[in-house]
Amino acid sequence: MSEHYKIREEELLFILNEQLGYGDLCNFERYRELSPDTLDMLVTEAIKFAKGVFDPLQSVGERNGTKYKNGQVYLAPGFKEAFKLCGENGWIAAVRDTTYGGQGFPNMMRIVISDIFSGACLCLHFISSLTHGAGHLIESSGSEELKERFVSKMYGGKWSGTMALTEPDAGSNLANIKTIAKRENGHFKIKGTKQFITYAEHDATENIIQLLLARIEGAPEGVRGLSLFVIPKILVNQDGTLGKPNDVVCGGIEEKLGLHASPTCVMNFGENDECIGYLCGEENMGLPHMFQMMNEARINTGACSVAIASTAYLNALEYCKTRVQGFDIAKRKEGFVPIIDHPDVRRMLLWMKAMVDGMRSMIYTTALFVDMAEENSDDSEKERYGLLLDFMTPIVKAYCSEMGFRVCEIAIQCLGGYGYCEEYPLEQYLRDSKIFSIYEGTSGIQSLDLLGRKMRMKHGRALQTFIDELDGFIEKNRGTKRFSGEMDLFRKALNRLKKISEAMASKMGVDPLHAASYSHALLRCYGDVIVSWRLLDMGIIAEKKLSNNKLSNTSGKKLFYEGKIFQATYLTNTVLPQTMALLDTCIREGREIIEIPEDSF
Amino acid sequence: MSEHYKIREEELLFILNEQLGYGDLCNFERYRELSPDTLDMLVTEAIKFAKGVFDPLQSVGERNGTKYKNGQVYLAPGFKEAFKLCGENGWIAAVRDTTYGGQGFPNMMRIVISDIFSGACLCLHFISSLTHGAGHLIESSGSEELKERFVSKMYGGKWSGTMALTEPDAGSNLANIKTIAKRENGHFKIKGTKQFITYAEHDATENIIQLLLARIEGAPEGVRGLSLFVIPKILVNQDGTLGKPNDVVCGGIEEKLGLHASPTCVMNFGENDECIGYLCGEENMGLPHMFQMMNEARINTGACSVAIASTAYLNALEYCKTRVQGFDIAKRKEGFVPIIDHPDVRRMLLWMKAMVDGMRSMIYTTALFVDMAEENSDDSEKERYGLLLDFMTPIVKAYCSEMGFRVCEIAIQCLGGYGYCEEYPLEQYLRDSKIFSIYEGTSGIQSLDLLGRKMRMKHGRALQTFIDELDGFIEKNRGTKRFSGEMDLFRKALNRLKKISEAMASKMGVDPLHAASYSHALLRCYGDVIVSWRLLDMGIIAEKKLSNNKLSNTSGKKLFYEGKIFQATYLTNTVLPQTMALLDTCIREGREIIEIPEDSF
Repeated sequence: MSEHYKIREEELLFILNEQLGYGDLCNFERYRELSPDTLDMLVTEAIKFAKGVFDPLQSVGERNGTKYKNGQVYLAPGFKEAFKLCGENGWIAAVRDTTYGGQGFPNMMRIVISDIFSGACLCLHFISSLTHGAGHLIESSGSEELKERFVSKMYGGKWSGTMALTEPDAGSNLANIKTIAKRENGHFKIKGTKQFITYAEHDATENIIQLLLARIEGAPEGVRGLSLFVIPKILVNQDGTLGKPNDVVCGGIEEKLGLHASPTCVMNFGENDECIGYLCGEENMGLPHMFQMMNEARINTGACSVAIASTAYLNALEYCKTRVQGFDIAKRKEGFVPIIDHPDVRRMLLWMKAMVDGMRSMIYTTALFVDMAEENSDDSEKERYGLLLDFMTPIVKAYCSEMGFRVCEIAIQCLGGYGYCEEYPLEQYLRDSKIFSIYEGTSGIQSLDLLGRKMRMKHGRALQTFIDELDGFIEKNRGTKRFSGEMDLFRKALNRLKKISEAMASKMGVDPLHAASYSHALLRCYGDVIVSWRLLDMGIIAEKKLSNNKLSNTSGKKLFYEGKIFQATYLTNTVLPQTMALLDTCIREGREIIEIPEDSF
Repeated sequence: MSEHYKIREEELLFILNEQLGYGDLCNFERYRELSPDTLDMLVTEAIKFAKGVFDPLQSVGERNGTKYKNGQVYLAPGFKEAFKLCGENGWIAAVRDTTYGGQGFPNMMRIVISDIFSGACLCLHFISSLTHGAGHLIESSGSEELKERFVSKMYGGKWSGTMALTEPDAGSNLANIKTIAKRENGHFKIKGTKQFITYAEHDATENIIQLLLARIEGAPEGVRGLSLFVIPKILVNQDGTLGKPNDVVCGGIEEKLGLHASPTCVMNFGENDECIGYLCGEENMGLPHMFQMMNEARINTGACSVAIASTAYLNALEYCKTRVQGFDIAKRKEGFVPIIDHPDVRRMLLWMKAMVDGMRSMIYTTALFVDMAEENSDDSEKERYGLLLDFMTPIVKAYCSEMGFRVCEIAIQCLGGYGYCEEYPLEQYLRDSKIFSIYEGTSGIQSLDLLGRKMRMKHGRALQTFIDELDGFIEKNRGTKRFSGEMDLFRKALNRLKKISEAMASKMGVDPLHAASYSHALLRCYGDVIVSWRLLDMGIIAEKKLSNNKLSNTSGKKLFYEGKIFQATYLTNTVLPQTMALLDTCIREGREIIEIPEDSF
């Protein structure tokens, strides 16, 4: 079995410890029983588990895919046992409180674990991640009875869970949801069809719990009339034992570009008018209940994208070090050389390295804000982190999903013809990776969220808080000599970003069509600036480590820190000038996007 | 059978007639029997043939793929009959002289036909295109005997042909080719293994003719010791009848990201020391013989990439016009609207439209230079077009292959979740399209060809000729009011391009590693400038048409011309500022790409 998973623990721990000081989370009351060492150990153990359990299933899953027959879905061999292990070893609910079997780790560790698991086997990660999300939603919105009946079994991996939102006519637009719930002695009867529902049917667990959005008869139109329901595949008796099957049938699975081991189901509810659902939370509050989880779900999507990009990069790197081809153009060596000696190959590798590391730091930073916003006892700090989190979430989601795909594309390029062949893992990474810019809200929707909501949220305070955070970084590092040119450039880019953001935010009020036609470009610029921020921060830390410690020239640690410096100066200098040019186009007068007649396309 | 092929004849003819005036080719002595109408008719007929014969095989090919069993390769149903039709209807050798059964059309029509056919069924197009290429190579380099024996049968589609260059250890680096040819009474015995050989084995024709690069025993090392051989699958008797099978065995086919209907073969020659090959052209001149075809093969790759991008765009466009989802953000309409009303969707469509049209024009323009260089009786004009062709070829190849892929990516994005599903054709376009930046020389190799060879060719005269051509365009259109801002911007970009090119070309002599580490960026900038040039040219022509003709507001022609104007101003204004920023980074001092230690990656 060829295992292709690659991850570097030291890269993750550098961000978590040296850049973010995540051990400080243990000072919060809620995490007082944890220690920084315990957090590090969780990372080490997660990597071990990913290598032992996830990695071997990547090729099995891809080769076998999922099979559909008469309403049943069959997963690839080994998925059932692996999911069971995820539950038994506490990975599903590692970041939930211990009440229903969680391990009590901080929220951000969910994102770190996602990063680690999804790089090894994305399709297996989905079932674990969805089960956690669905269980968490019941835990946070459901009645005591629902919680008792469902949550521990889900967190323990005995049952799995998923979210059922999308319908054939309501993809990005939940306002159009047509699934109906009729009230009937203490529960509801559900009728409708959902589409693109991941892991809604499979053979890995004895029960599958769907969290579904539907409209209670007589409820208002639009998103304000949506309620959340718990729909078990097999009904659960009062005593927790399984009863008869619910009227939920999988009508088929999609054939897709990638994610072949993860079933994407069409689900029919109540074809025989016997689909029983339980209201979860308040009536007509389905969307707000769901949206509680939205930030984390979106950050998680970014994390999965970067995880795939990271292993793609490391695979390409290994190939480039060992593949011998062509002469050294500067004739430094005789004969044929490893392709990592070719400047354009190095260009691809350095770009991938910088993007992967910068995005990973962006994601971990945003994930840390989740805990800072939840646990801080200081109200103004709590609000500050909450605003940073809200503001950065759509950027993390859209930017990392698009750039992660780009990394996979370049990684294939490094391998040439071999990259195009299934013999190497790269082509699968590309196919799998394309989903991230689509689900959990497309990039277009994220960019509109940023420009239309986040930018103007609380009278612009989210925007201001974000700018202040980055200004603070500049202020704090005013003395750095090694990066003075880069910091100058960064400051200019940030000023420009602020100015253009304000202009666009106010244009959004008076000329929304025109403003929105540059929302995607604006989000892209935010992503560039945040990646630069994170890379410069890492570079500055690395530089201090280098000057404070006497490290031998060939020491791994020295080379590691130097890599942080090279990637920081390279990326900021080559990307930010284009970012500033792109920013200017965001406020240009030209209205071609809006004005071109439909029939002129 | 779902047919997804989309093409607009009027877009092609606008470039060919109104922009390039390709009818003037008929003034050349060689094409005196053709008329402009005949050329137009060829376009019309090619589209008809693509729709009738190619398009229906796209889904058949994808579903069935190719099968390998005991050295035999089986194509998808219908491919055999379709290839036969290609030969019988004169499509294989449409641009060859009539000597061996060609139709005598100008060279550029091969590129136009490629564009038309490959958008409908790329995998079927390959066998036709390779057969033409192999036949043409024999026709241009082989002895009379070889020509008589092979060429007509290939052009007529009775036999197919292919090129066998790559070996497991010699992908991009032909210098390392190990296949050996031993002299033996009037022919050669060949021994070696080739890899990634497209259509080297299949069941569509009774014979398959491979054009193979090998080293004659005792020949020099490196590329100067390579000779070209004709290797038939079945030996051909003096009288043209088929003899016994040659010692050529297909050892297997690759499983690939895309191109499922096109077999990618490992070929073993002379496992029993009985593989007979015939020297084609002069000894040790294999590479120069091959390179005669290289410009056209590379332009052809660009054409295929844009063809796929074009049908991807048109499919996305149709979807966006009909898919209803979400509210109009400016509240211009009540209720849910087609997604083409959303600004960010329009942003994606307009970008795709402009890129596809700009690249198609870039490709047709370069293809026209082939004929202008070959047929011109004026020596200085002949040289001028030859230089333009040489200079632009690597840009066409690399830029169009990368941007074509980008278009496919964005086209999927327009469809959201549906774009990810096999039910729609978009995901296949993405997978197929990734090959173009790899074969016929990767983007990295093209960028080195541009910077290391073309830029310094004939003491910089190729570069100067290119700059003069674009300066001439600016000069000629100095009076345009509608595009004065865009022409200003274009002029600035061109000046900057020239300056940076000269700086990099001289740096290439003294500091090749550093220069080469920005060769890819430089090529990208050339691509942007050429696309802008072509789009502005089209826009100016369209504007003249609009002001010279009274067209009703709803006339299709008027909307068509307006589209040309919108795409020109949009693309130049949003892309060129970034191009100029990227140009500046090409000559930055920072040497991270070169200096980062291998173990710091």
